[in-house]
Amino acid sequence: MSSVERQLEDLKAEITDEVPDDISISDVRYEGPELVVYTRHPKKFAQDGDLIRRLASKLRKRITVRPDPDVLSRPSEARAEIEEVIPEEAGVTDLDFHADTGEVVIEAAKPGMVIGRHGSTLREITKRVGWTPEVVRTPPIESSTVSNVRNFLKQEREERRDILERIGRQIHRRQMADEQWVRITTLGCCREVGRAAFVLSTADTRILIDCGDKPGAEGEVPYLQVPEALGAGASNLDAVVLTHAHLDHSALIPLLFKYGYDGPIYCTEPTRDLMGLLTLDYLDVAAKEGRAPPYESEMVREAIKHCIPIEYGDVTDIAPDVKLTFHNAGHILGSAVSHFHIGDGLYNVAFSGDIHYDDTRLFNGAVNEFPRVETLVMESTYGGRNDYQTDQEDAERQLVNVINEAHEKGGKVLIPAFAVGRSQEIMLVLEEAMRKGKIPEMPVHLDGMIWEATAIHTTYPEYLRDDLRDRIFHDDENPFLADYFNHIDGGEEERQEVADGEQAIVLSTSGMVTGGPIMSWLRHVGSDPDSTMVFVGYQAQGTLGRRIQNGWDEIPINDRNGGGRSNTMTMKMDVKTVDGFSGHADRQGLMNFVRTMNPRPEKVLCVHGDEKSTQDLSSALYHEFNMRTFAPKNLETFRFK
Amino acid sequence: MSSVERQLEDLKAEITDEVPDDISISDVRYEGPELVVYTRHPKKFAQDGDLIRRLASKLRKRITVRPDPDVLSRPSEARAEIEEVIPEEAGVTDLDFHADTGEVVIEAAKPGMVIGRHGSTLREITKRVGWTPEVVRTPPIESSTVSNVRNFLKQEREERRDILERIGRQIHRRQMADEQWVRITTLGCCREVGRAAFVLSTADTRILIDCGDKPGAEGEVPYLQVPEALGAGASNLDAVVLTHAHLDHSALIPLLFKYGYDGPIYCTEPTRDLMGLLTLDYLDVAAKEGRAPPYESEMVREAIKHCIPIEYGDVTDIAPDVKLTFHNAGHILGSAVSHFHIGDGLYNVAFSGDIHYDDTRLFNGAVNEFPRVETLVMESTYGGRNDYQTDQEDAERQLVNVINEAHEKGGKVLIPAFAVGRSQEIMLVLEEAMRKGKIPEMPVHLDGMIWEATAIHTTYPEYLRDDLRDRIFHDDENPFLADYFNHIDGGEEERQEVADGEQAIVLSTSGMVTGGPIMSWLRHVGSDPDSTMVFVGYQAQGTLGRRIQNGWDEIPINDRNGGGRSNTMTMKMDVKTVDGFSGHADRQGLMNFVRTMNPRPEKVLCVHGDEKSTQDLSSALYHEFNMRTFAPKNLETFRFK
Repeated sequence: MSSVERQLEDLKAEITDEVPDDISISDVRYEGPELVVYTRHPKKFAQDGDLIRRLASKLRKRITVRPDPDVLSRPSEARAEIEEVIPEEAGVTDLDFHADTGEVVIEAAKPGMVIGRHGSTLREITKRVGWTPEVVRTPPIESSTVSNVRNFLKQEREERRDILERIGRQIHRRQMADEQWVRITTLGCCREVGRAAFVLSTADTRILIDCGDKPGAEGEVPYLQVPEALGAGASNLDAVVLTHAHLDHSALIPLLFKYGYDGPIYCTEPTRDLMGLLTLDYLDVAAKEGRAPPYESEMVREAIKHCIPIEYGDVTDIAPDVKLTFHNAGHILGSAVSHFHIGDGLYNVAFSGDIHYDDTRLFNGAVNEFPRVETLVMESTYGGRNDYQTDQEDAERQLVNVINEAHEKGGKVLIPAFAVGRSQEIMLVLEEAMRKGKIPEMPVHLDGMIWEATAIHTTYPEYLRDDLRDRIFHDDENPFLADYFNHIDGGEEERQEVADGEQAIVLSTSGMVTGGPIMSWLRHVGSDPDSTMVFVGYQAQGTLGRRIQNGWDEIPINDRNGGGRSNTMTMKMDVKTVDGFSGHADRQGLMNFVRTMNPRPEKVLCVHGDEKSTQDLSSALYHEFNMRTFAPKNLETFRFK
Repeated sequence: MSSVERQLEDLKAEITDEVPDDISISDVRYEGPELVVYTRHPKKFAQDGDLIRRLASKLRKRITVRPDPDVLSRPSEARAEIEEVIPEEAGVTDLDFHADTGEVVIEAAKPGMVIGRHGSTLREITKRVGWTPEVVRTPPIESSTVSNVRNFLKQEREERRDILERIGRQIHRRQMADEQWVRITTLGCCREVGRAAFVLSTADTRILIDCGDKPGAEGEVPYLQVPEALGAGASNLDAVVLTHAHLDHSALIPLLFKYGYDGPIYCTEPTRDLMGLLTLDYLDVAAKEGRAPPYESEMVREAIKHCIPIEYGDVTDIAPDVKLTFHNAGHILGSAVSHFHIGDGLYNVAFSGDIHYDDTRLFNGAVNEFPRVETLVMESTYGGRNDYQTDQEDAERQLVNVINEAHEKGGKVLIPAFAVGRSQEIMLVLEEAMRKGKIPEMPVHLDGMIWEATAIHTTYPEYLRDDLRDRIFHDDENPFLADYFNHIDGGEEERQEVADGEQAIVLSTSGMVTGGPIMSWLRHVGSDPDSTMVFVGYQAQGTLGRRIQNGWDEIPINDRNGGGRSNTMTMKMDVKTVDGFSGHADRQGLMNFVRTMNPRPEKVLCVHGDEKSTQDLSSALYHEFNMRTFAPKNLETFRFK
């Protein structure tokens, strides 16, 4: 009997001891970080509302109870009963019975009403039918990403269970090492922006945190070619943790599976879906630009199959000696500050990922309270001495003014924007401004991936800022569903119509005018002196966006009918820039994050910023808070214990 | 054709171009770091005394010329001619002809007389017989280690040539990496003494520097179990560099071959022989103490087979982007400060290994002049604030006094000493003191490995202090051959005779009274109140030596007939301690090494010392010289470029 078998036997005995005599436990297994308890008496189990919580706290494990497949009622009967229990307003759109695990997945427009107060409705379902209900939200805006991911996971259910069982045994294996240590190896994004990647290692465990690409240097990934970098190869990693879905953090996650990785990817549920969306787009763009993509779309599916979603605040065992907790990072949907508790009180490390310290319209500010933390690995994008940004209120006022001026001129407003994050922030500003009459009501056309990204946002309102969430949940006012917003899904024809039609705002990718539908929009309205282009995000050196910002007016532009011929367009639009909509904390925000952090860490590694930003921030934190600070280079290893 | 083949073709063409028309070049091959040129006209080659030097400087390679096997004269003829050329006083003891390479190995008591002024005699030999002569010294004291190593290498000659050819191609392979970096990973001996090991890595190359064990924690080698530690496994290493033969630097070198390493070990010739002696003894001691040795003696032979000896000052290519130069370290025979020149002027790192800054009787002080050096990795054994040692003159005066006092009491003088280094230092002091009449003449008995270690010292007088070398070479006064010295090779019987006989000094291992023949000597003379025990080296906490030093007089001691019974002996000898014979620089010496270093490095990593010593030294160097200094932990990685 392996040590894990023995452990499970012991757990089964302990659980049998703990539950009332009339509840029999037929099996106990690991599925990823969870302990799944199979019982012949699921209904009795559900009667004691507190039993699972008591078990979890006694065993110090996350526990799921499922009915023994032998005692399941027939799905057709169960369906009728479930529909009776759930109030109609919950808007159930699908019931999916899985006899192998006794689970029924309930998709509903309002999951809260399926769950009930403190889970009472869920328990009622189990009491009546024995099945274990799981609830997911019906996307209020149809999202092909969400439905693809869900269908794919449904289809791969069986393999996924095997994977989770294997991972579970891995997590709960016995610790082997005699020595204890805690080390961080920097693989990317040190003294540079892009290709975030770190290995957190103990004597027992190696965890990769993020695995991104470098914009402008795609595919050049020196660290993946250094044999020792990933702990002697991807197959030696125990876990991958993804802080958020942006490509400079996620793009090379699927590549790991090509390199032999076969373990879990811990991330939030929206991060999983956004990663799917963005990595597939990454492959598309590579193909369009004639670059060999580093992996195939099959590997994206592999990655999604290995995702284990974790919610903010849940303490999760991810290795015998490591517990992971995610906290809101305020940067994009699902972005997480990742806190690692190592050993039994040995050490604590927090990786900030990308953070926004102050509240934005979309998100609460980043969490910086932890039970303990000795070392912080911190982003420094705007860590430079003078990297102060316009505050959001000013930025919004400026945007309102710019749009009003543009409107008076009678033309269109063209806003290049990144699909994930800043687009939704701008949508919220525009929706409120129109609703409150600060700007004239007019259509807002969303082009490129923006609509799809917005649909994913509406699927996970739990991850949005609390007052926004409240509006959606309690007041039924989902601003993303406002009538102003129109999805451009009719291609060039629809764009032509919009261009020829009434005054409107167009939000389109790519955010730096380096490709995508924004190029079409330039052709349609670029030469119209009555129209205005408004930049709301950072334009990197070398991009067309930056050139336009700098006043270039001869724009090389491919003919709309393709064929490789390239014309020059004379740019006659007004060009405006509104700063202050970044997803990143500015210098002040970064300093405040540390100033108010509780507890204050002893050491800070300043990463994810160019050389000057990381060194400036490192030096400022040292002088202001007298902590040990570092601006590491890539491929260094720090030992903390 | 591989890139190495092409390179060799080009070199052959270039050499053919350079040499006179009547010299034909039949083949050009790599053997380890050397380029071997085979010619059909070895005699003509030898006529131009400067030709090889010109070629070497033009091609920037170490060059050896050998006769094409087809043109070799018969060994019997050659032997007669060679014996005619070499003066009789050279004391030739063996001629060994190797027809496969056209080499003749000449073993002689006085190699200098075989070489002749600026190599004139060697050239004369080639001019006469065509064969390429190689000279080795006949050990003035018979050394089983030296003769075993030589015989073994003779016997493995063919395999060794294959190994060298493979290594040569590896060294001269094309550089593949686009990026350039220089990193050092600390594997052992950081904030501790013992198990020295570092990996120096570039994008192309991984070099292990030392691979020692930790005394008192033998076999516990956490770093070898960290998969990324050795650059993802021993088989990924390109080269191993051994700074000196002490077990805390060398003990686990043979283990590498068990782990799949198959590359070169660069060290000086005496380090190779001493490593053989000490690692075999290490296996013996493990077996005697009932520990499972980490490898078998076969692996020691593997290690010796892969040694590539390098002399002080020779710049040697050991990888496409790394040149290694050894310099005298003053610590023990063959000990080397190892200087690495990386890339084409990219970076320079020096590893001090263990050093003695001031001259001792045996060795010149450590070299600290380099063409360039940006980072120094420096030992800190006596780096602590108060780690000042008695200077050697005082120490010698004290030893003389102690021996005179002991002599007056009429008993024996028992000196526990390490076989390698300190024993020979004490021998030199005693020899001079007796010769000059400062102490009475009496026999000095050498027990344990001391005699053998001394024999190895006499085999390599080039590595000794210059005035000592001059005495040996020019005045024919080898102090190690003095009549006072007697090798205890008659076991217990001889010891009993000595104990019962006239007044004498006994130098015996082990140096900390933890086993070995010193235990017998304790039984023989320990309870004699007229005898004196003199400690001349550091006694670690927990050793019997330390206890005796502290005044314990009830000594547990195994019965001489074994059988596991253990008795207690009452110690009645006088116990004295004479400080100042360390092989390590003291605090002042370490500071002076850096103060007078040329050029002064930018960064210093203080290693090979306990936590306090490394931190004290690091802080002192920072404050005094305003350099960046570190006291790393094990398993950290520093990046310099």
